[in-house]
Amino acid sequence: MTGQRKIIMDNRPIGVFDSGVGGLTVVKEILKELPKEDIVYFGDTARVPYGSKSRATVLKFSIENTIILLHHNVKMIVVACNTSSSVSLEILKKNFRVPIIGVIEPGAKQAVRLTKNNRIGVIGTKGTISSGAYEKEIHRLNKRIKVSSASCPLFVPLVEEGWNQTQIAKEIAKIYLSPLKKSDIDTLILGCTHYPLLKNQIAKVLKGVRLVDSARALAAQVRGILDASNIACSGNKKQDLQVYVSDEPESFARIGEKFLGRCIRSVKKVQVNV
Amino acid sequence: MTGQRKIIMDNRPIGVFDSGVGGLTVVKEILKELPKEDIVYFGDTARVPYGSKSRATVLKFSIENTIILLHHNVKMIVVACNTSSSVSLEILKKNFRVPIIGVIEPGAKQAVRLTKNNRIGVIGTKGTISSGAYEKEIHRLNKRIKVSSASCPLFVPLVEEGWNQTQIAKEIAKIYLSPLKKSDIDTLILGCTHYPLLKNQIAKVLKGVRLVDSARALAAQVRGILDASNIACSGNKKQDLQVYVSDEPESFARIGEKFLGRCIRSVKKVQVNV
Repeated sequence: MTGQRKIIMDNRPIGVFDSGVGGLTVVKEILKELPKEDIVYFGDTARVPYGSKSRATVLKFSIENTIILLHHNVKMIVVACNTSSSVSLEILKKNFRVPIIGVIEPGAKQAVRLTKNNRIGVIGTKGTISSGAYEKEIHRLNKRIKVSSASCPLFVPLVEEGWNQTQIAKEIAKIYLSPLKKSDIDTLILGCTHYPLLKNQIAKVLKGVRLVDSARALAAQVRGILDASNIACSGNKKQDLQVYVSDEPESFARIGEKFLGRCIRSVKKVQVNV
Repeated sequence: MTGQRKIIMDNRPIGVFDSGVGGLTVVKEILKELPKEDIVYFGDTARVPYGSKSRATVLKFSIENTIILLHHNVKMIVVACNTSSSVSLEILKKNFRVPIIGVIEPGAKQAVRLTKNNRIGVIGTKGTISSGAYEKEIHRLNKRIKVSSASCPLFVPLVEEGWNQTQIAKEIAKIYLSPLKKSDIDTLILGCTHYPLLKNQIAKVLKGVRLVDSARALAAQVRGILDASNIACSGNKKQDLQVYVSDEPESFARIGEKFLGRCIRSVKKVQVNV
Protein backbone atom coordinates (compact mmCIF):
# COMPACT_ATOMS: atom_id res chain seq x y z
CA MET A 1 0.00 0.00 0.00
CA THR A 2 3.04 2.27 0.06
CA GLY A 3 2.54 5.52 -1.88
CA GLN A 4 -1.22 5.36 -1.69
CA ARG A 5 -3.03 8.29 -0.10
CA LYS A 6 -4.90 7.39 3.06
CA ILE A 7 -8.56 8.33 2.69
CA ILE A 8 -10.12 9.84 5.80
CA MET A 9 -13.86 10.24 5.77
CA ASP A 10 -15.28 13.03 7.85
CA ASN A 11 -19.03 12.94 7.95
CA ARG A 12 -19.39 15.91 10.27
CA PRO A 13 -21.28 18.90 8.83
CA ILE A 14 -19.86 22.13 7.41
CA GLY A 15 -20.76 25.16 9.56
CA VAL A 16 -21.90 28.39 7.91
CA PHE A 17 -22.72 31.62 9.72
CA ASP A 18 -24.10 34.98 8.70
CA SER A 19 -25.57 38.02 10.46
CA GLY A 20 -29.00 36.98 9.23
CA VAL A 21 -30.71 35.34 6.30
CA GLY A 22 -28.46 36.45 3.40
CA GLY A 23 -25.85 33.73 3.96
CA LEU A 24 -28.35 31.19 2.67
CA THR A 25 -27.31 32.25 -0.85
CA VAL A 26 -23.90 30.81 0.04
CA VAL A 27 -25.51 27.66 1.47
CA LYS A 28 -27.43 27.23 -1.78
CA GLU A 29 -24.18 27.12 -3.78
CA ILE A 30 -22.43 24.77 -1.34
CA LEU A 31 -25.37 22.34 -1.37
CA LYS A 32 -25.20 22.34 -5.17
CA GLU A 33 -21.41 22.03 -5.41
CA LEU A 34 -21.08 19.40 -2.68
CA PRO A 35 -24.19 17.22 -2.69
CA LYS A 36 -22.83 14.82 -0.09
CA GLU A 37 -22.05 17.43 2.57
CA ASP A 38 -24.35 18.28 5.47
CA ILE A 39 -24.61 21.89 6.60
CA VAL A 40 -25.35 23.56 9.93
CA TYR A 41 -26.32 27.21 9.37
CA PHE A 42 -26.45 29.89 12.03
CA GLY A 43 -28.08 33.30 11.34
CA ASP A 44 -27.62 35.87 14.09
CA THR A 45 -31.05 37.39 13.54
CA ALA A 46 -31.30 38.87 17.05
CA ARG A 47 -28.31 41.13 16.41
CA VAL A 48 -28.56 41.69 12.64
CA PRO A 49 -27.34 43.84 10.85
CA TYR A 50 -23.55 43.79 11.25
CA GLY A 51 -22.79 46.21 8.40
CA SER A 52 -23.38 49.39 10.40
CA LYS A 53 -21.62 48.20 13.56
CA SER A 54 -18.06 48.62 14.80
CA ARG A 55 -15.15 46.27 14.14
CA ALA A 56 -14.93 45.30 17.83
CA THR A 57 -18.60 44.39 18.01
CA VAL A 58 -18.61 42.46 14.72
CA LEU A 59 -15.50 40.56 15.87
CA LYS A 60 -17.13 39.68 19.22
CA PHE A 61 -20.27 38.44 17.43
CA SER A 62 -18.18 36.46 14.90
CA ILE A 63 -16.27 34.68 17.68
CA GLU A 64 -19.54 33.81 19.43
CA ASN A 65 -21.04 32.51 16.17
CA THR A 66 -17.95 30.36 15.56
CA ILE A 67 -18.30 28.83 19.03
CA ILE A 68 -22.00 28.12 18.43
CA LEU A 69 -21.11 26.22 15.24
CA LEU A 70 -18.29 24.34 17.00
CA HIS A 71 -20.87 23.20 19.57
CA HIS A 72 -22.56 21.54 16.60
CA ASN A 73 -19.42 19.59 15.84
CA VAL A 74 -18.63 21.14 12.46
CA LYS A 75 -15.49 20.15 10.52
CA MET A 76 -15.00 23.54 8.88
CA ILE A 77 -16.54 27.00 9.08
CA VAL A 78 -17.70 29.27 6.26
CA VAL A 79 -18.12 32.94 7.16
CA ALA A 80 -20.88 33.81 4.70
CA CYS A 81 -21.24 37.40 5.94
CA ASN A 82 -19.11 39.90 4.02
CA THR A 83 -18.84 42.34 6.96
CA SER A 84 -17.81 39.55 9.30
CA SER A 85 -15.32 38.15 6.75
CA SER A 86 -13.83 41.62 6.21
CA VAL A 87 -13.37 42.38 9.87
CA SER A 88 -12.77 39.09 11.64
CA LEU A 89 -11.53 36.34 9.31
CA GLU A 90 -7.81 36.72 10.05
CA ILE A 91 -8.38 36.69 13.81
CA LEU A 92 -10.74 33.72 13.63
CA LYS A 93 -8.23 31.75 11.51
CA LYS A 94 -5.43 32.58 13.93
CA ASN A 95 -7.35 31.47 17.00
CA PHE A 96 -9.40 28.44 16.01
CA ARG A 97 -8.02 25.08 14.85
CA VAL A 98 -10.88 24.28 12.47
CA PRO A 99 -10.43 25.38 8.81
CA ILE A 100 -12.23 28.73 8.34
CA ILE A 101 -13.00 30.41 5.02
CA GLY A 102 -14.64 33.75 4.21
CA VAL A 103 -16.23 35.32 1.15
CA ILE A 104 -13.62 38.01 0.45
CA GLU A 105 -10.84 35.89 -1.08
CA PRO A 106 -13.01 33.91 -3.53
CA GLY A 107 -14.84 37.08 -4.65
CA ALA A 108 -11.61 39.03 -5.12
CA LYS A 109 -9.98 36.14 -7.03
CA GLN A 110 -12.89 35.85 -9.42
CA ALA A 111 -12.96 39.59 -10.08
CA VAL A 112 -9.21 39.66 -10.76
CA ARG A 113 -9.67 36.77 -13.21
CA LEU A 114 -12.52 38.57 -15.00
CA THR A 115 -11.31 42.16 -15.35
CA LYS A 116 -9.86 43.16 -18.71
CA ASN A 117 -9.09 46.82 -17.99
CA ASN A 118 -7.76 46.32 -14.44
CA ARG A 119 -10.52 48.40 -12.88
CA ILE A 120 -12.68 46.64 -10.31
CA GLY A 121 -15.56 48.07 -8.29
CA VAL A 122 -16.66 46.84 -4.87
CA ILE A 123 -19.97 47.55 -3.15
CA GLY A 124 -20.86 46.49 0.38
CA THR A 125 -21.95 47.61 3.84
CA LYS A 126 -20.20 50.46 5.66
CA GLY A 127 -18.25 47.89 7.70
CA THR A 128 -17.06 45.96 4.64
CA ILE A 129 -16.07 49.03 2.65
CA SER A 130 -14.34 50.87 5.49
CA SER A 131 -12.32 47.71 6.32
CA GLY A 132 -10.73 47.85 2.85
CA ALA A 133 -10.64 44.04 2.90
CA TYR A 134 -11.52 43.50 -0.79
CA GLU A 135 -9.03 46.14 -1.88
CA LYS A 136 -6.23 44.51 0.14
CA GLU A 137 -7.04 41.07 -1.25
CA ILE A 138 -7.22 42.35 -4.86
CA HIS A 139 -3.88 44.14 -4.46
CA ARG A 140 -2.32 41.03 -2.93
CA LEU A 141 -3.23 39.27 -6.19
CA ASN A 142 -2.40 42.13 -8.57
CA LYS A 143 -0.98 45.46 -7.47
CA ARG A 144 -1.79 47.24 -10.72
CA ILE A 145 -5.55 46.92 -10.43
CA LYS A 146 -7.42 50.09 -9.56
CA VAL A 147 -10.20 49.49 -7.03
CA SER A 148 -13.18 51.84 -6.59
CA SER A 149 -15.63 51.16 -3.80
CA ALA A 150 -18.94 52.41 -2.43
CA SER A 151 -21.05 51.50 0.59
CA CYS A 152 -24.77 51.10 -0.10
CA PRO A 153 -26.49 51.05 3.32
CA LEU A 154 -30.05 51.17 1.92
CA PHE A 155 -29.67 48.07 -0.28
CA VAL A 156 -30.20 45.57 2.55
CA PRO A 157 -33.37 47.18 3.97
CA LEU A 158 -34.68 47.55 0.38
CA VAL A 159 -34.25 43.83 -0.26
CA GLU A 160 -35.71 42.93 3.13
CA GLU A 161 -38.75 45.12 2.36
CA GLY A 162 -39.14 43.15 -0.89
CA TRP A 163 -38.74 46.33 -2.97
CA ASN A 164 -35.86 45.08 -5.12
CA GLN A 165 -37.83 45.26 -8.37
CA THR A 166 -39.24 48.77 -7.83
CA GLN A 167 -38.52 52.17 -9.36
CA ILE A 168 -37.31 53.33 -5.92
CA ALA A 169 -34.65 50.58 -5.95
CA LYS A 170 -33.52 51.71 -9.40
CA GLU A 171 -33.20 55.33 -8.27
CA ILE A 172 -31.30 54.40 -5.12
CA ALA A 173 -28.97 52.17 -7.19
CA LYS A 174 -28.35 55.14 -9.49
CA ILE A 175 -27.32 57.37 -6.60
CA TYR A 176 -24.98 54.81 -5.04
CA LEU A 177 -23.43 53.54 -8.27
CA SER A 178 -22.96 56.73 -10.30
CA PRO A 179 -19.47 57.40 -8.84
CA LEU A 180 -18.45 53.85 -9.83
CA LYS A 181 -19.74 54.40 -13.35
CA LYS A 182 -17.37 57.35 -13.67
CA SER A 183 -14.44 55.14 -12.57
CA ASP A 184 -14.81 53.08 -15.76
CA ILE A 185 -14.87 49.70 -13.96
CA ASP A 186 -15.53 46.59 -16.06
CA THR A 187 -16.14 44.26 -13.08
CA LEU A 188 -18.13 44.80 -9.87
CA ILE A 189 -17.99 42.66 -6.73
CA LEU A 190 -21.39 42.37 -5.03
CA GLY A 191 -19.83 42.42 -1.55
CA CYS A 192 -22.95 41.60 0.47
CA THR A 193 -25.14 38.50 0.40
CA HIS A 194 -28.28 40.59 -0.19
CA TYR A 195 -27.01 42.35 -3.29
CA PRO A 196 -27.47 39.55 -5.85
CA LEU A 197 -31.22 40.14 -5.34
CA LEU A 198 -30.66 43.64 -6.78
CA LYS A 199 -28.68 42.38 -9.81
CA ASN A 200 -31.28 43.68 -12.30
CA GLN A 201 -31.20 47.22 -10.93
CA ILE A 202 -27.42 47.27 -10.66
CA ALA A 203 -27.03 45.99 -14.24
CA LYS A 204 -29.34 48.76 -15.50
CA VAL A 205 -27.08 51.44 -14.00
CA LEU A 206 -23.74 49.77 -14.79
CA LYS A 207 -24.43 48.47 -18.30
CA GLY A 208 -21.86 46.00 -19.59
CA VAL A 209 -20.13 45.62 -16.21
CA ARG A 210 -19.56 42.03 -15.05
CA LEU A 211 -21.19 41.35 -11.67
CA VAL A 212 -19.32 39.01 -9.30
CA ASP A 213 -21.36 37.17 -6.69
CA SER A 214 -18.80 35.36 -4.57
CA ALA A 215 -21.10 32.54 -3.39
CA ARG A 216 -20.27 30.25 -6.33
CA ALA A 217 -16.54 30.92 -6.22
CA LEU A 218 -16.63 30.26 -2.49
CA ALA A 219 -18.39 26.90 -2.93
CA ALA A 220 -15.61 25.77 -5.27
CA GLN A 221 -13.04 26.83 -2.70
CA VAL A 222 -14.85 24.87 0.04
CA ARG A 223 -14.51 21.78 -2.15
CA GLY A 224 -10.80 22.52 -2.50
CA ILE A 225 -10.30 22.72 1.27
CA LEU A 226 -12.24 19.51 1.94
CA ASP A 227 -10.12 17.68 -0.64
CA ALA A 228 -6.81 19.20 0.50
CA SER A 229 -7.52 18.47 4.17
CA ASN A 230 -8.93 15.08 3.26
CA ILE A 231 -12.13 15.70 5.20
CA ALA A 232 -14.80 15.33 2.52
CA CYS A 233 -17.94 13.45 3.39
CA SER A 234 -18.46 9.91 2.16
CA GLY A 235 -21.48 7.68 1.72
CA ASN A 236 -24.77 8.03 -0.02
CA LYS A 237 -27.07 9.35 2.71
CA LYS A 238 -29.49 12.22 2.09
CA GLN A 239 -27.97 15.67 2.38
CA ASP A 240 -29.02 17.45 5.59
CA LEU A 241 -29.42 21.18 6.34
CA GLN A 242 -29.94 22.31 9.92
CA VAL A 243 -30.79 25.98 10.48
CA TYR A 244 -30.35 27.86 13.77
CA VAL A 245 -31.13 31.52 14.51
CA SER A 246 -30.84 33.82 17.53
CA ASP A 247 -34.24 35.52 17.11
CA GLU A 248 -37.58 33.73 16.78
CA PRO A 249 -37.50 31.12 14.00
CA GLU A 250 -41.07 31.60 12.68
CA SER A 251 -40.56 34.20 9.96
CA PHE A 252 -37.03 33.04 9.11
CA ALA A 253 -38.06 29.95 7.15
CA ARG A 254 -40.42 31.99 4.98
CA ILE A 255 -37.89 34.74 4.14
CA GLY A 256 -35.01 32.26 3.98
CA GLU A 257 -36.62 30.34 1.14
CA LYS A 258 -36.21 33.41 -1.12
CA PHE A 259 -32.45 33.27 -0.56
CA LEU A 260 -32.06 29.49 -0.53
CA GLY A 261 -34.37 28.87 -3.46
CA ARG A 262 -35.99 25.89 -1.77
CA CYS A 263 -38.03 24.91 1.26
CA ILE A 264 -36.45 25.04 4.74
CA ARG A 265 -37.65 22.11 6.80
CA SER A 266 -37.01 23.41 10.30
CA VAL A 267 -35.44 26.40 12.05
CA LYS A 268 -34.46 26.35 15.72
CA LYS A 269 -33.57 29.13 18.12
CA VAL A 270 -30.31 29.25 20.11
CA GLN A 271 -28.92 31.69 22.69
CA VAL A 272 -25.95 33.73 21.46
CA ASN A 273 -24.41 34.65 24.79
CA VAL A 274 -21.84 31.88 24.95
CA MET B 1 -46.49 70.63 60.80
CA THR B 2 -49.68 68.50 60.61
CA GLY B 3 -51.25 68.46 57.17
CA GLN B 4 -48.05 69.58 55.46
CA ARG B 5 -46.67 67.33 52.75
CA LYS B 6 -43.31 65.79 53.58
CA ILE B 7 -40.82 66.72 50.85
CA ILE B 8 -38.48 63.93 49.84
CA MET B 9 -35.59 64.90 47.61
CA ASP B 10 -34.26 62.24 45.30
CA ASN B 11 -31.19 63.38 43.47
CA ARG B 12 -30.64 60.09 41.63
CA PRO B 13 -30.81 60.30 37.83
CA ILE B 14 -33.69 59.34 35.54
CA GLY B 15 -32.80 56.36 33.32
CA VAL B 16 -33.75 56.39 29.64
CA PHE B 17 -33.18 53.54 27.22
CA ASP B 18 -33.65 53.07 23.49
CA SER B 19 -32.53 50.55 20.86
CA GLY B 20 -30.08 53.15 19.54
CA VAL B 21 -29.72 56.85 19.06
CA GLY B 22 -33.34 57.91 18.43
CA GLY B 23 -34.29 58.05 22.11
CA LEU B 24 -32.16 61.16 22.47
CA THR B 25 -35.15 63.11 21.05
CA VAL B 26 -36.95 62.04 24.23
CA VAL B 27 -33.94 63.02 26.37
CA LYS B 28 -33.95 66.45 24.72
CA GLU B 29 -37.53 67.08 25.85
CA ILE B 30 -36.95 65.79 29.39
CA LEU B 31 -33.85 67.98 29.83
CA LYS B 32 -35.94 70.96 28.71
CA GLU B 33 -39.00 70.14 30.84
CA LEU B 34 -37.02 69.20 33.97
CA PRO B 35 -33.85 71.29 34.10
CA LYS B 36 -32.84 70.01 37.55
CA GLU B 37 -32.93 66.31 36.66
CA ASP B 38 -29.87 64.27 35.71
CA ILE B 39 -30.21 61.59 33.04
CA VAL B 40 -28.45 58.30 32.36
CA TYR B 41 -29.10 57.18 28.77
CA PHE B 42 -28.48 53.73 27.39
CA GLY B 43 -28.60 53.06 23.62
CA ASP B 44 -28.37 49.37 22.65
CA THR B 45 -26.38 50.12 19.49
CA ALA B 46 -24.84 46.64 19.27
CA ARG B 47 -28.27 45.04 18.81
CA VAL B 48 -30.19 47.86 17.07
CA PRO B 49 -32.74 47.81 15.42
CA TYR B 50 -35.55 46.34 17.53
CA GLY B 51 -38.38 47.16 15.10
CA SER B 52 -37.90 44.12 12.88
CA LYS B 53 -37.30 41.61 15.71
CA SER B 54 -39.63 39.30 17.58
CA ARG B 55 -41.57 40.12 20.76
CA ALA B 56 -39.54 37.60 22.78
CA THR B 57 -36.22 39.07 21.69
CA VAL B 58 -37.30 42.69 22.21
CA LEU B 59 -38.60 41.77 25.66
CA LYS B 60 -35.32 40.06 26.59
CA PHE B 61 -33.31 43.10 25.41
CA SER B 62 -35.66 45.49 27.28
CA ILE B 63 -35.21 43.56 30.54
CA GLU B 64 -31.43 43.64 30.10
CA ASN B 65 -31.49 47.38 29.37
CA THR B 66 -33.61 47.99 32.48
CA ILE B 67 -31.07 46.11 34.61
CA ILE B 68 -28.19 48.12 33.10
CA LEU B 69 -29.95 51.36 34.07
CA LEU B 70 -30.71 50.04 37.57
CA HIS B 71 -26.96 49.38 37.97
CA HIS B 72 -26.62 53.14 37.49
CA ASN B 73 -28.93 53.75 40.45
CA VAL B 74 -31.76 55.41 38.53
CA LYS B 75 -34.96 56.50 40.32
CA MET B 76 -37.26 55.93 37.38
CA ILE B 77 -37.00 54.48 33.86
CA VAL B 78 -38.25 55.93 30.58
CA VAL B 79 -38.59 53.46 27.70
CA ALA B 80 -37.92 55.84 24.82
CA CYS B 81 -38.12 53.14 22.15
CA ASN B 82 -41.58 52.71 20.64
CA THR B 83 -41.06 49.04 19.76
CA SER B 84 -39.81 48.25 23.24
CA SER B 85 -42.67 50.24 24.85
CA SER B 86 -45.21 48.44 22.66
CA VAL B 87 -43.94 44.99 23.43
CA SER B 88 -42.49 45.06 26.93
CA LEU B 89 -43.81 47.94 29.04
CA GLU B 90 -46.52 45.99 30.87
CA ILE B 91 -44.14 43.17 31.77
CA LEU B 92 -41.40 45.59 32.91
CA LYS B 93 -43.90 47.50 35.10
CA LYS B 94 -45.17 44.25 36.61
CA ASN B 95 -41.71 42.97 37.48
CA PHE B 96 -39.60 45.95 38.54
CA ARG B 97 -40.25 48.18 41.57
CA VAL B 98 -38.94 51.40 40.00
CA PRO B 99 -41.53 53.61 38.20
CA ILE B 100 -41.38 52.84 34.45
CA ILE B 101 -43.00 54.87 31.69
CA GLY B 102 -43.14 54.33 27.93
CA VAL B 103 -43.93 56.47 24.90
CA ILE B 104 -47.23 54.85 23.87
CA GLU B 105 -49.57 56.28 26.51
CA PRO B 106 -48.47 59.94 26.21
CA GLY B 107 -48.57 59.78 22.39
CA ALA B 108 -52.00 58.14 22.34
CA LYS B 109 -53.39 60.65 24.89
CA GLN B 110 -52.20 63.61 22.88
CA ALA B 111 -53.63 62.22 19.65
CA VAL B 112 -57.00 61.58 21.30
CA ARG B 113 -56.99 65.15 22.61
CA LEU B 114 -56.20 66.56 19.15
CA THR B 115 -58.48 64.61 16.79
CA LYS B 116 -61.67 66.34 15.70
CA ASN B 117 -63.04 63.65 13.38
CA ASN B 118 -62.14 60.65 15.58
CA ARG B 119 -59.78 59.18 12.97
CA ILE B 120 -56.19 58.71 14.08
CA GLY B 121 -53.31 57.25 12.10
CA VAL B 122 -50.29 55.48 13.59
CA ILE B 123 -46.99 54.79 11.86
CA GLY B 124 -44.13 52.80 13.35
CA THR B 125 -41.83 49.81 12.98
CA LYS B 126 -43.19 46.35 12.18
CA GLY B 127 -42.88 45.43 15.87
CA THR B 128 -44.80 48.48 17.06
CA ILE B 129 -47.59 48.19 14.48
CA SER B 130 -48.08 44.44 14.81
CA SER B 131 -48.27 44.75 18.62
CA GLY B 132 -51.38 46.97 18.23
CA ALA B 133 -50.22 48.87 21.36
CA TYR B 134 -51.24 52.36 20.16
CA GLU B 135 -54.62 51.11 18.98
CA LYS B 136 -55.30 49.45 22.36
CA GLU B 137 -54.30 52.59 24.27
CA ILE B 138 -56.41 54.85 22.02
CA HIS B 139 -59.44 52.57 22.42
CA ARG B 140 -58.94 52.48 26.20
CA LEU B 141 -59.32 56.28 26.10
CA ASN B 142 -62.10 56.44 23.49
CA LYS B 143 -63.74 53.41 21.91
CA ARG B 144 -65.31 55.37 19.06
CA ILE B 145 -62.04 56.45 17.49
CA LYS B 146 -61.09 54.73 14.25
CA VAL B 147 -57.39 53.86 14.11
CA SER B 148 -55.51 53.23 10.84
CA SER B 149 -51.92 52.10 11.00
CA ALA B 150 -48.96 51.40 8.73
CA SER B 151 -45.45 50.11 9.30
CA CYS B 152 -42.69 52.03 7.51
CA PRO B 153 -39.54 49.85 7.72
CA LEU B 154 -37.46 52.03 5.36
CA PHE B 155 -37.94 55.26 7.35
CA VAL B 156 -35.27 54.45 9.97
CA PRO B 157 -32.50 53.48 7.49
CA LEU B 158 -33.42 56.56 5.39
CA VAL B 159 -32.93 58.87 8.37
CA GLU B 160 -29.74 57.08 9.40
CA GLU B 161 -28.40 57.52 5.86
CA GLY B 162 -29.13 61.26 6.19
CA TRP B 163 -31.53 61.15 3.23
CA ASN B 164 -34.55 62.59 5.05
CA GLN B 165 -34.70 65.72 2.87
CA THR B 166 -34.39 63.92 -0.48
CA GLN B 167 -36.81 63.19 -3.31
CA ILE B 168 -36.38 59.46 -2.55
CA ALA B 169 -37.65 60.07 1.01
CA LYS B 170 -40.69 61.89 -0.38
CA GLU B 171 -41.46 59.03 -2.77
CA ILE B 172 -41.10 56.40 -0.06
CA ALA B 173 -43.32 58.46 2.27
CA LYS B 174 -45.93 58.60 -0.49
CA ILE B 175 -45.96 54.81 -0.84
CA TYR B 176 -46.23 54.14 2.89
CA LEU B 177 -48.72 56.90 3.69
CA SER B 178 -51.16 56.74 0.76
CA PRO B 179 -53.39 54.14 2.46
CA LEU B 180 -53.60 56.42 5.53
CA LYS B 181 -54.57 59.36 3.33
CA LYS B 182 -57.54 57.36 2.09
CA SER B 183 -58.62 56.70 5.69
CA ASP B 184 -59.31 60.43 6.16
CA ILE B 185 -57.28 60.74 9.38
CA ASP B 186 -56.84 64.24 10.86
CA THR B 187 -54.10 63.23 13.34
CA LEU B 188 -51.04 61.00 12.90
CA ILE B 189 -48.87 59.54 15.67
CA LEU B 190 -45.19 59.38 14.69
CA GLY B 191 -44.67 56.11 16.53
CA CYS B 192 -40.87 55.88 16.21
CA THR B 193 -38.20 58.21 17.54
CA HIS B 194 -36.63 58.60 14.08
CA TYR B 195 -39.81 59.76 12.34
CA PRO B 196 -39.87 63.40 13.54
CA LEU B 197 -36.80 63.88 11.30
CA LEU B 198 -39.10 63.04 8.35
CA LYS B 199 -41.83 65.47 9.43
CA ASN B 200 -41.46 67.62 6.29
CA GLN B 201 -41.90 64.69 3.93
CA ILE B 202 -44.81 63.25 5.91
CA ALA B 203 -46.55 66.66 6.02
CA LYS B 204 -46.22 66.98 2.22
CA VAL B 205 -48.09 63.69 1.71
CA LEU B 206 -50.63 64.13 4.50
CA LYS B 207 -51.46 67.81 4.08
CA GLY B 208 -53.41 69.33 7.00
CA VAL B 209 -52.95 66.26 9.24
CA ARG B 210 -51.66 67.01 12.78
CA LEU B 211 -48.43 65.16 13.54
CA VAL B 212 -47.98 63.89 17.09
CA ASP B 213 -44.44 63.39 18.34
CA SER B 214 -44.83 61.82 21.77
CA ALA B 215 -41.50 63.05 23.21
CA ARG B 216 -42.94 66.31 24.54
CA ALA B 217 -46.06 64.73 25.97
CA LEU B 218 -43.88 62.11 27.61
CA ALA B 219 -41.65 64.72 29.26
CA ALA B 220 -44.70 66.31 30.86
CA GLN B 221 -45.79 62.90 32.13
CA VAL B 222 -42.32 62.28 33.62
CA ARG B 223 -42.73 65.50 35.59
CA GLY B 224 -46.12 64.26 36.80
CA ILE B 225 -44.67 60.98 38.06
CA LEU B 226 -41.75 62.68 39.85
CA ASP B 227 -44.19 65.02 41.59
CA ALA B 228 -46.74 62.32 42.43
CA SER B 229 -44.06 59.98 43.78
CA ASN B 230 -42.34 62.87 45.52
CA ILE B 231 -38.97 62.00 43.97
CA ALA B 232 -38.09 65.16 42.04
CA CYS B 233 -34.54 66.40 42.20
CA SER B 234 -33.62 69.37 44.37
CA GLY B 235 -30.72 71.80 44.51
CA ASN B 236 -29.11 74.03 41.96
CA LYS B 237 -26.29 71.88 40.60
CA LYS B 238 -25.59 71.68 36.88
CA GLN B 239 -27.74 69.19 34.97
CA ASP B 240 -25.81 66.05 34.02
CA LEU B 241 -26.29 63.67 31.06
CA GLN B 242 -24.38 60.39 30.99
CA VAL B 243 -24.57 58.32 27.81
CA TYR B 244 -23.84 54.60 27.55
CA VAL B 245 -23.96 52.39 24.46
CA SER B 246 -23.37 48.69 23.71
CA ASP B 247 -21.40 49.23 20.47
CA GLU B 248 -18.33 51.45 20.08
CA PRO B 249 -18.99 54.99 21.33
CA GLU B 250 -17.00 56.94 18.70
CA SER B 251 -19.62 57.61 16.03
CA PHE B 252 -22.50 57.78 18.51
CA ALA B 253 -21.72 61.25 19.85
CA ARG B 254 -21.60 62.68 16.34
CA ILE B 255 -24.89 61.16 15.18
CA GLY B 256 -26.49 61.67 18.60
CA GLU B 257 -26.09 65.41 18.40
CA LYS B 258 -28.52 65.51 15.47
CA PHE B 259 -31.19 63.95 17.69
CA LEU B 260 -30.31 65.76 20.92
CA GLY B 261 -29.79 69.15 19.31
CA ARG B 262 -26.68 69.81 21.38
CA CYS B 263 -23.19 68.53 22.05
CA ILE B 264 -22.69 65.17 23.84
CA ARG B 265 -19.75 65.40 26.21
CA SER B 266 -18.89 61.73 26.61
CA VAL B 267 -20.19 58.31 25.57
CA LYS B 268 -19.07 55.10 27.27
CA LYS B 269 -19.43 51.48 26.23
CA VAL B 270 -21.06 48.81 28.44
CA GLN B 271 -21.61 45.08 28.00
CA VAL B 272 -25.23 44.07 27.49
CA ASN B 273 -25.07 40.46 28.61
CA VAL B 274 -26.17 40.98 32.20
